[in-house]
Amino acid sequence: MNNEEIIIKKIVEEVVKRLQCTNEAYVPIGISNRHVHLTTEDLEVLFGKGYQLTKMKDLKQPGQYAAQETVTVIGPKGEFKGVRILGPVRKETQLELSLSDGFKLGVNVPVRESGKTEGTPKIVLKGPMGTVEKDQAVIAALRHIHMPAVFAENYGFKDKEMVTVEVGDVRRVSFHNVLVRVSKDFDLEMHLDIDEANAAAICNGDLGKILKD
Amino acid sequence: MNNEEIIIKKIVEEVVKRLQCTNEAYVPIGISNRHVHLTTEDLEVLFGKGYQLTKMKDLKQPGQYAAQETVTVIGPKGEFKGVRILGPVRKETQLELSLSDGFKLGVNVPVRESGKTEGTPKIVLKGPMGTVEKDQAVIAALRHIHMPAVFAENYGFKDKEMVTVEVGDVRRVSFHNVLVRVSKDFDLEMHLDIDEANAAAICNGDLGKILKD
Repeated sequence: MNNEEIIIKKIVEEVVKRLQCTNEAYVPIGISNRHVHLTTEDLEVLFGKGYQLTKMKDLKQPGQYAAQETVTVIGPKGEFKGVRILGPVRKETQLELSLSDGFKLGVNVPVRESGKTEGTPKIVLKGPMGTVEKDQAVIAALRHIHMPAVFAENYGFKDKEMVTVEVGDVRRVSFHNVLVRVSKDFDLEMHLDIDEANAAAICNGDLGKILKD
Repeated sequence: MNNEEIIIKKIVEEVVKRLQCTNEAYVPIGISNRHVHLTTEDLEVLFGKGYQLTKMKDLKQPGQYAAQETVTVIGPKGEFKGVRILGPVRKETQLELSLSDGFKLGVNVPVRESGKTEGTPKIVLKGPMGTVEKDQAVIAALRHIHMPAVFAENYGFKDKEMVTVEVGDVRRVSFHNVLVRVSKDFDLEMHLDIDEANAAAICNGDLGKILKD
């Protein structure tokens, strides 16, 4: 490139950057009820040797689905029957609850990023064929956005960046500390739990505006 | 006043205004569980003619208290036993629920300012001596701040103004559309329900920062 071309390239980059800053990015909200992801090993203890999950319906994230199967979750002060299993099986069992769920069960659920289950409270999962006690499984999911790589690039967001998302009307809320997770395999969606959705009085599929944190 | 005094007065006013703008105002959060305020008439239907509430403990707002008495709240899909009555009696019966409470009862609870109960869903209250059916009583309280007049004056807030309150840590949230209610008889407190408190992962007494909306 000659000097003129370099200057033009810089101007174009600057214009694109400015456009990205003023361009408003919106994300549809997906509201998660309590659910569990299981390892093959835990699935077999709960449902029997060689058991395979049966898909009930696809979730928005490609490859993920709600299974027909459910478990009972038992805590020191209460239990929930019919807690949905999400498939496919994973490397680690993870139970995702709201803070109000934790209160009813009698466990102090930490707000954590998915997969960060070290030192979480003990909980029992019960299936038709057996029970498992887990002491590294229970989290309230740190709110997060599944962001396709092409969207992230267009709007100037990075993987693991924290953003703010503004949502709602009469109960308008800005959720700060929203974790951005970027992958070419994601469909665009922000995950909130039911406490968070109620606090903003929003419904599944409502749009949130993504702002720099 | 001579011209010089007028100019000095104007400068002082300007300085005070600037200080108010940069001065950060904080409010302690009070988390409300579901509760009910009763008229004398409804109290008598539920507990018997001439019945008087018994104070269990004072609330933060002067003159307000939690009574020893509770009622059962019955909706189309569920019920809550032991719903606390707050005293003293009022001119209108008002049941304050969270949106998740409404879901469990099977009623679509509107988010409303206290007292605005026109056209709210039907609900039954049951006491030891009788039941009342109310069709103008059920709200999810619009989040609000009880603000002493002197505080409002110091920080430049007005009665019925809407503000934003930022609160929380790992689940930091800015609550917008927070109604300011000013009275010389109020103690400084922001009321949130349990959904809202869980969405921000905060505890009773945590401090929120008040910002212009």
